[in-house]
Amino acid sequence: MRHLAVRLARGAVPLVRTASTAAALKVGDALRSHGPRRRFTEADVAAYAAVSGDRNPVHLDDAFARGEAGFLRGRVVHGMLVASLFPALIASHFPGAVYARQSLRFAAPVHVGDEVVAEVQALQIKATGARHIVKFATKCFTDAGDGETLAIDGEAMAFLPTLQVSPEDD
Amino acid sequence: MRHLAVRLARGAVPLVRTASTAAALKVGDALRSHGPRRRFTEADVAAYAAVSGDRNPVHLDDAFARGEAGFLRGRVVHGMLVASLFPALIASHFPGAVYARQSLRFAAPVHVGDEVVAEVQALQIKATGARHIVKFATKCFTDAGDGETLAIDGEAMAFLPTLQVSPEDD
Repeated sequence: MRHLAVRLARGAVPLVRTASTAAALKVGDALRSHGPRRRFTEADVAAYAAVSGDRNPVHLDDAFARGEAGFLRGRVVHGMLVASLFPALIASHFPGAVYARQSLRFAAPVHVGDEVVAEVQALQIKATGARHIVKFATKCFTDAGDGETLAIDGEAMAFLPTLQVSPEDD
Repeated sequence: MRHLAVRLARGAVPLVRTASTAAALKVGDALRSHGPRRRFTEADVAAYAAVSGDRNPVHLDDAFARGEAGFLRGRVVHGMLVASLFPALIASHFPGAVYARQSLRFAAPVHVGDEVVAEVQALQIKATGARHIVKFATKCFTDAGDGETLAIDGEAMAFLPTLQVSPEDD
């Protein structure tokens, strides 16, 4: 049995919807990655630095990150790499989704090895031709064992080919 | 002699500033990558899909991209990978820069092999303690040989350790 979608109300215990009860996305529905939380490794950061060309020492040099940049826990995962969890999560449930917009506020650093989890929640849904355009709240949290900390906040708009929620890939 | 910064006024011919005349960043200054334009390869897209976990068939499957998604030229480079050019460009001139915000509007698709160039232009500069916080307009253009097309538009805010423009890494 796979958890697909979590419907959250502020302060409420999540009502977990499973594959057998999956339905069309509604305003208020929230989606989170199931399974183990993501931890970005040093190899992930190196691979992302190579493909993006972003070799900022904040991300690659612990001594620099601690010193000049003031990150006591050392090098920081590229914020745009962490933010990639949002379109990845949306596409895992809606293959063929096409991104229109994303806003990002980097609220707290994510360090190599930190547990991170992304959550998207449908704020608005509009039909547009054969597709739907959906505005999502997008939040990413870290958890160092003492509860969740908001790391990235923002909103996304994406064109979805269908509102039917697909099971997340394993 | 390396080109460092391009000061642009609307409609004006760029005044290229070179290493020997490099000065502190001012409002209105624009920075572009020098040298050959970036072309994202299939290997780049595969590497980014692996590290981000975003395996949307829009990015990986030409037939799907042409069919269901309606991209006549086939698979599309992940928008967030193209957008990584903005922090990469800022960090190349301001090592130690720390991102605070980024907004992104995906205006046109970027395909594998397309020439792309990122440009950031300082809109506001404020001192904050020992650092400066700078708001940049961030634009990314593609060029298929018939002039530049705006692919991504948006704004970034970043903390810079200094306003002195460093030569871009080779």
